Formats: sequence, structure tokens, C-alpha cells
Amino acid sequence: MYRKELKVLDCTIRDGGLINNYQFSTDFVKKVYSAACEAGVDYVELGKKLAESDEYTRDNFGPWNFCDDELLKEVVDSYDGDYRPGVAVMYDVGRVEVNALQPRDQSPMDMVRTACYVHQIDAGIELVKRCKDLGYETTVNIMAASAAIESELVEGLEELNQCDELDWLYLVDSYGAFYSEQVTYYLKLYQKHAPDKPLGFHAHNNQQLAFSNTQQAIIDGVNLLDATINGIGRGAGNCNLELLLNFLKNPKFDVRPVYKVIQSEFVPLRREIEWGFNDIYGISGHLNQHPRDAMKLRADPHRRDLCYDFFLSSARMEDPGI
Amino acid sequence: MYRKELKVLDCTIRDGGLINNYQFSTDFVKKVYSAACEAGVDYVELGKKLAESDEYTRDNFGPWNFCDDELLKEVVDSYDGDYRPGVAVMYDVGRVEVNALQPRDQSPMDMVRTACYVHQIDAGIELVKRCKDLGYETTVNIMAASAAIESELVEGLEELNQCDELDWLYLVDSYGAFYSEQVTYYLKLYQKHAPDKPLGFHAHNNQQLAFSNTQQAIIDGVNLLDATINGIGRGAGNCNLELLLNFLKNPKFDVRPVYKVIQSEFVPLRREIEWGFNDIYGISGHLNQHPRDAMKLRADPHRRDLCYDFFLSSARMEDPGI
Repeated sequence: MYRKELKVLDCTIRDGGLINNYQFSTDFVKKVYSAACEAGVDYVELGKKLAESDEYTRDNFGPWNFCDDELLKEVVDSYDGDYRPGVAVMYDVGRVEVNALQPRDQSPMDMVRTACYVHQIDAGIELVKRCKDLGYETTVNIMAASAAIESELVEGLEELNQCDELDWLYLVDSYGAFYSEQVTYYLKLYQKHAPDKPLGFHAHNNQQLAFSNTQQAIIDGVNLLDATINGIGRGAGNCNLELLLNFLKNPKFDVRPVYKVIQSEFVPLRREIEWGFNDIYGISGHLNQHPRDAMKLRADPHRRDLCYDFFLSSARMEDPGI
Repeated sequence: MYRKELKVLDCTIRDGGLINNYQFSTDFVKKVYSAACEAGVDYVELGKKLAESDEYTRDNFGPWNFCDDELLKEVVDSYDGDYRPGVAVMYDVGRVEVNALQPRDQSPMDMVRTACYVHQIDAGIELVKRCKDLGYETTVNIMAASAAIESELVEGLEELNQCDELDWLYLVDSYGAFYSEQVTYYLKLYQKHAPDKPLGFHAHNNQQLAFSNTQQAIIDGVNLLDATINGIGRGAGNCNLELLLNFLKNPKFDVRPVYKVIQSEFVPLRREIEWGFNDIYGISGHLNQHPRDAMKLRADPHRRDLCYDFFLSSARMEDPGI
């Protein structure tokens, strides 16, 4: 697949941070950033930019949950190549302090991605406007579209379409519940009710469909694609960046730095933290459920592989007595 | 997805046997067979039916490489439920003794699947005719279609279309190289040059696309779908039966027995043998290469995770010097 407009956003650190509480070493993040630069991706997301609070203390939440400008600068300055992807951070509606944001020309950041549920879209739009005032590229990532009431989603899409400050609008398969036909269905809905907005897509791999659904999104007209190195991410993880770059024929991309950093950094990391498909996540995706119960089960050494028990309890079904 | 004509073939033992030299215990095979019966799949393939030879000795190759009638009868008779899927075995062209085959009505088998490369199609047709004479359902599974010269494949398809004794014709993605667009491309080729034959599809999961490509095959008109429990199979494995049954809405299927046998039998088995996606298999799939080099690498404890080195050598590329 080659299409000039296609852009890739590496969200390795931001989505991967969800499974280690954003405790990556600065050295690790520098290596990921360097690999993303060398691979030629268009954007690299280095974490969340949450405000410190009683709930989100710096002691308990890792540095990539706050993405201080100085820290991001240290990462960006550590790479001395010519090509620079845009640096993105994620905003969680209700957990940020937009007044603390520096203007883009005084910041290492280029893009602020605002994640919100359907009922938070109005709050998200306010953040988008403020971020755009400061010069940032903006996205809204509507989470858990598969669990939203469609009429409310449609209303939100129409509001977002009116927001001139919004650059990209994301379909997010938070629960890894989509088959390709749902990707197409929701993207048509997005295109109908937010026809002026370029679209992005963010997959999860609960049913081994993150990569194939991302391909379907491309076919359906999406031009901004999220992926992570080695598929790292919460639960079943994300679309593997290396698979995606192999699929994309655009010569601006080079997959070799991605395999190189997997070999040197992600292979050892896998011995410490787990991500990727297994049947527990497959069940939560199939049932269109938040992965929290699946993640809790995987964290229990005595129950982590009890997929049959998990299926019965999650689907509220009985043992057929065989 | 619901379509009355859709049939599922469980090839857990036959494809899984490729990674343990068909050394499953009879008890394990009985449990798989029982789960397949309870799940309501249409066919269950219990191994290969090779002829004993100097190369294939009974001492070195497990019982499920030979599938003696008595052994299959023991498995089939161990289950006392009412529903019985068809019992299939695989024939490898050049390694079988068709004269030793009993007529279907004196055998526990219902279907003989003949696996052949494009250049073996004539030999495959001979076997199909002999098997049909003995009353068996027949398939031809053309291996490695992605590596075949298309004009030769087309010639083979036209011959197969003329073979009245052939019941099903398979597209097989032996190298896990297909994206959904290739699935569609090859199926159109099959439908053009073998329009009289119902089609089957057999995927491999090198690029995490076995399940999604199977869905694409359904969309493109295939009615016989291969899958294995927990995705077990050579290298990256196959389409996961449990994911496929979740996708299929046909009420004749029940996924619970599949999760049950995964929990009791496949979770322990995973501690002994490896299968499933990793970047090594992803590379061999992307490059449309036989998985033998990838499997060899995975068997080497010192090199099994060196995906970067494997990519450079497999793609015949250089380190970019970064």
C-alpha cells in the first residue's frame, strides 16, 4: 500500500507506559525516539502530559505521565540526525492543566492529542482550542467508540466537525472489539458526520486484528495511523510498527531501526513486562469489554491462564456440563 | 458473520503435529477430538497418513504421521456424544500408499486432504481419484501459492476444475505472506480458473493475519475454513479456532469446549513447545519465504530473538550504519 498522504504516529512510549506506569528509563526513551526518527515516522508520542495532583503524584507516576518540557528536550536533543518527527503528547480530559502549556515555539512538543470519551467531547473541544491557540497540531481521540451510544457519538462528531482548531479526528478501538466490517462502519459514520476532518485510527490487538484493522482503515481513507514498536501497549497491545512499515510501500520509511531497537531493547523488556495477544484478551475484545478485568486476571499468577473460567464469567454463561 | 454454507475444519493435531513430530499422546488427541465434537466443527483432521518408509520410520515419526485405522477408531470411539464431525487426514503427494487405504465404509476416516505443490498437481489428482473411488470426500490443498509462478498455478487450477472427483479446492498461505488484498486476488484467480469447485482456505499467522485473512476469505466466498485450537501450528501457527467461532454467528458452534481444552491441555503444552507470532516469523512472512530458516533460528537459544540480524540476512540488506 502506498499513498502519499499516509502518516504514521509511533505511540510506543505513551501506550507502552500504560503497562509499566510510565517508568521507562530516559535512556530507553532516547533509543525509541532515535529509532522512530531513523525509521522516518511522522510523529512520535512520548507520553501523557498530566497535571500533578493528589491522585497523580510524581512519586507514584512515572516521568512520562507528565512529560516536562526539559525532559522532552533532553530526549529530542540526544538525537543528532537531520530528520525530526513531530513530538506528540496525550492529554486526558479532566487531568491536565492547559495554563501550564508553553507556546509551541518555546516547547519541544508539536502535537497535543486529546483523549476523551463521548460524553467528554465538549471538554475536549475546549482543550483543543486552547492548544491550537498556542500553536499546536491537535487531535481528538474518542475512546471506546464501540461502547458508545451511536446517537451520542454522532452528535459529538458533528460538534467536532465544527471545531476549526481540530486537525485530526481519531477512531479508537479501545476494547479491541472491532472486526474489519466495524472499522468500515464507524469510519463511514465519521466521514458522514465529520466530513471536514482528516481521520486517524488507533487499534488494539485483543483479537489479533490490530494490524489488519489498521490496513482496513487505510483502505477506508484514514491517513494517520497509530502503531507501537513490537506492538507494546496495554493488554493485548497495539498494531506493530514493524508490520505496518513492512506493509506501507512509502520509501520514506525504513523498518531496520525498528527491528534493531526491538532486538536490543524490547527483547529484554519482554522478560520484565507482558504484552500481546492471548485468549484472555481475545475474550474481552470479543465481548466488547474494557480490558481491566482481563488485565487483572493476567496479573494473578494462579488464574492468569484460566480462559475458560474467564469466558464463562465474562459472557455470563454456564458450563454446558460436558 | 453468518452463512449457512460455512464449514469449519479443525486441523489442530495435523498442523500442531508439525512442531512436535506428531508425538501427541492418545489421551491429548482424544481430548482435542472431543472438544471439536462438542464445539460442533464440521471436520477434524487427526494427522497425516504417510506410508512407512526408510525416511519415515515409525520409530522416528509419531503415530499421528501414520494415522492407523485402529488408532483413529480408538479416538473416535472414546467420545460418546451424538454429533460427529467428519474425520480427515492429510496426504502428502509422494509419501503415501493409496493401495493401503480401506474403503470409507470400513474406515474411521471421511475425508482425505491431498497437499501438493503446483508442480505436483497431476500426482495429486491421481490420488484424489483413487480416494474418491474408495468413497472419501476429497480436497486438494495447493501449498505455497504465494511462491508459485502464476501461469503454472492457473494451469493447475484448470486441471483441478476438470477433476470431478475433487470436492474442495484450497488456497493455502503456507508462508503467511498474504495481506487481505492478496487473499482476494488469489481467490478471484481460483474462482476464474476453477469455477466449479467450492473453495477452502488455510492461513498462517506470520504477520498476525491468519484470523483476519480467514475473514477476508469468507467475504470472498470461501466456505471451508481451517483453524486450530489456540492457533497451534508450525512456526507462527494458524487461525485460532476460538477466535473464528466467536466471529461466526452460526448457532451450531459452541466455543466453550474450545476454551475448556485450551485451559486444561494447551496452557501446559505451551510450556513445552512454542508456537505463535513473533517478529522472526513476521519477517519470513513479509519476505514470502519458507519458514524453515525462521524455525531454525527460533530453535537456537542464543539467536532466537535476533530479529534485526535475521531481517538483514533474510532481506539481503545492510546495516544502515546508524
